[in-house]
Amino acid sequence: MQHVNLGMIGGGTVGSGVFHAWQKNGGLMAARLGVKINFRKIAVKAFDEPRPYPIARNLMTTDWQEVVNDPEIHVVIELVGGCGIARTMVLASLAQGKTVVTANKALISAHGPELFAAAAKSGANLYFEASVCGGIPIIKSLREGFVANQFPAIYGIVNGTCNYILSRMKAEGADFAAVLADAQKLGYAETPPDLDIDGHDAQHKIGILASLAHGFWADHHAIHTEGIRDVSKIDMQFAEKLGYTIKLLGIAKRISGRKPGVQVSVYPTLIPNTHVLAGVNGVFNACFVRGDIVGDTLFYGRGAGKDATASAVLSDVADAALDLKNGVKVRVAPFVPCNKGGRITSMAEIVSRYYLRLSVVDKPGTLAKIAAIFAAAKIGISSVIQPEGHEGESVPLILMIHDAPNAAMQRALAKIARLPVVKNPPVMFRVENFE
Amino acid sequence: MQHVNLGMIGGGTVGSGVFHAWQKNGGLMAARLGVKINFRKIAVKAFDEPRPYPIARNLMTTDWQEVVNDPEIHVVIELVGGCGIARTMVLASLAQGKTVVTANKALISAHGPELFAAAAKSGANLYFEASVCGGIPIIKSLREGFVANQFPAIYGIVNGTCNYILSRMKAEGADFAAVLADAQKLGYAETPPDLDIDGHDAQHKIGILASLAHGFWADHHAIHTEGIRDVSKIDMQFAEKLGYTIKLLGIAKRISGRKPGVQVSVYPTLIPNTHVLAGVNGVFNACFVRGDIVGDTLFYGRGAGKDATASAVLSDVADAALDLKNGVKVRVAPFVPCNKGGRITSMAEIVSRYYLRLSVVDKPGTLAKIAAIFAAAKIGISSVIQPEGHEGESVPLILMIHDAPNAAMQRALAKIARLPVVKNPPVMFRVENFE
Repeated sequence: MQHVNLGMIGGGTVGSGVFHAWQKNGGLMAARLGVKINFRKIAVKAFDEPRPYPIARNLMTTDWQEVVNDPEIHVVIELVGGCGIARTMVLASLAQGKTVVTANKALISAHGPELFAAAAKSGANLYFEASVCGGIPIIKSLREGFVANQFPAIYGIVNGTCNYILSRMKAEGADFAAVLADAQKLGYAETPPDLDIDGHDAQHKIGILASLAHGFWADHHAIHTEGIRDVSKIDMQFAEKLGYTIKLLGIAKRISGRKPGVQVSVYPTLIPNTHVLAGVNGVFNACFVRGDIVGDTLFYGRGAGKDATASAVLSDVADAALDLKNGVKVRVAPFVPCNKGGRITSMAEIVSRYYLRLSVVDKPGTLAKIAAIFAAAKIGISSVIQPEGHEGESVPLILMIHDAPNAAMQRALAKIARLPVVKNPPVMFRVENFE
Repeated sequence: MQHVNLGMIGGGTVGSGVFHAWQKNGGLMAARLGVKINFRKIAVKAFDEPRPYPIARNLMTTDWQEVVNDPEIHVVIELVGGCGIARTMVLASLAQGKTVVTANKALISAHGPELFAAAAKSGANLYFEASVCGGIPIIKSLREGFVANQFPAIYGIVNGTCNYILSRMKAEGADFAAVLADAQKLGYAETPPDLDIDGHDAQHKIGILASLAHGFWADHHAIHTEGIRDVSKIDMQFAEKLGYTIKLLGIAKRISGRKPGVQVSVYPTLIPNTHVLAGVNGVFNACFVRGDIVGDTLFYGRGAGKDATASAVLSDVADAALDLKNGVKVRVAPFVPCNKGGRITSMAEIVSRYYLRLSVVDKPGTLAKIAAIFAAAKIGISSVIQPEGHEGESVPLILMIHDAPNAAMQRALAKIARLPVVKNPPVMFRVENFE
């Protein structure tokens, strides 16, 4: 049986997970694939750094260049993370003509085109299934399973930390800060938590999916991104009353019309409780993919963690191994730029429905003033909730707003915020009905 | 750009769907794949048979042998269905060294090993993504995305007709017969409906998934199969009271212990309302896949229909085209028999929980007699519902039964059925908690 030699850079949580999965199922993989996969070298920070599974001592080195420069190593797995040294490692491996497998969403998001060009130059391949939605084979499904489809819309719950926090806020009626603190204690959120809860991680992932789906590279600077810090218990409760759940969605939606483009964005979104995404709770991830031929589909699973990530990394390794066995250089390219005129539609142009929570003084004429501003902007109000209060006091006022362009909505909101009867900055979330 | 020529046998609903999808997105596929896919010949029953999308007249023939024998055709798509002439067509195509793509679950289920041997003999490949769960890339995900996993359990809602009927029975409190009649009128069920509602179609599909997951071919004769004819409105309602939904599940579950094996079966199952599969309604299909590395995952989408099926057929065509382009004979074999000692565990050995509905005479001592039979068989009762009735009349008696081997349960049930106080044959469904 032919064999393929692996080198790995990173021997912490995920790295030891990959090694463990290979120890457990490497023999099965060889039987399934007809090619044997060997681990040859694993570069670690320290031999005795904490790791959930042990790594064979004789495979370890603390010098990553030993992995990259070993002529016997065919495939390099990069699990270092971030855009610093990891970029150097990936570029060095590709320059050696080695296939690279990475779980590094930040790196692919920020430097994808540079890395793809480097791979093409040396005839190597670059795989990144584990970079989006952990163990869910969403990248393989988009590029191969749905190769005959255009993608009118993709909606993803792609950050497990945010989904865990929002799920608990909803289930327990708890506050954001309390749940975040608890999530940090339990290891479901990092300290500091910004990368996750400010939406950056979700931005990396939806950018990658949007790029693969639409055939042009989605520049992450152009991806409108909002995190979940502004989602409060009270909004969760009003959303529930209206029949909605609040989820942080990565959205990649085709915009037709005079100036076609693709909406690529991340923001907390009200989705109907009856939608299949509303039932995705805890640390689980899910991608709802609408293909023009296949229709509506959903992929669900663990979006992170050593084992789920290992499953995805090893599936990339298997693809690389099959190509090496068959003498194929690049069977499926990491990215095919087949849409030269593709562009991200700016958020200002995006039309959506809105949930709006104002804090207003309960006195005659308040609603009339607000309604007048929306009327002047030709923005329709579809429903109002105003809980009973005491005249002269501050009360919440909830408005559901019909489809309106973002720019018009922002202008109207700025005017409303300046009304003396409006006490706090307005809280606004978009509403998605998946139509 | 290189090109691959397709021939297709079958130009009705699904065939015209494939042709239409290719007309719409064939150019996009070529850009993505770097290989052009041409339709060369399509064998139809009649030029003017009814079809939802038109097929170019100059491509049509009524002689399928013209497709199989055309030396310019590289890939043959078989969409005839059934195990008769379709088998001849597939074998003839493979004998010519042509790659075959089929959506024919009955054929793969009944004749898989013969077809795989024929493919191996002539060095051709055989693809069947569309045979299970329509457009959902479940076969690719099992074999490629989850190649590093063993599969402790797979649960599939794999028959859209049954799921449509059960969903409506639950939502509307309607009777089986009424919903079936309506489903036939609406085209969601065939006339006669036996293949679907007696579980045969689900049997074909779970057998294929079990085989791929466990590395031995699951002989369809050994797959315990029950349909949904015995699910009544009253069971749906009692299940709901207990927190469950009734779904027709295809199950492929690893059985450990003294005699390891795999449970492969199809039957109506009570599943907790909180489980993600309970929310899969209407004609949608879903597969819940538990991998030992990846954890729990779900794949959801349209399990049938011209367009969803076309998406899967064309993804197989794309894989075949890439292999032809790269000069690879068989990159992923249709089936790898890597588990020589694999066996299907007989239903008698399977342990599960049960829902039991008896029709009993409401008089003192009834429950005691039934409980005594279970006690003697060492079968535990976990809960009882006995709606209030009038003494001497027939009332339903609902029992939830703890884990018990099927054989013991059947023996106890036979004794219970013979009690004079038990009026109708007992109704029994298994309960799955996904533990």
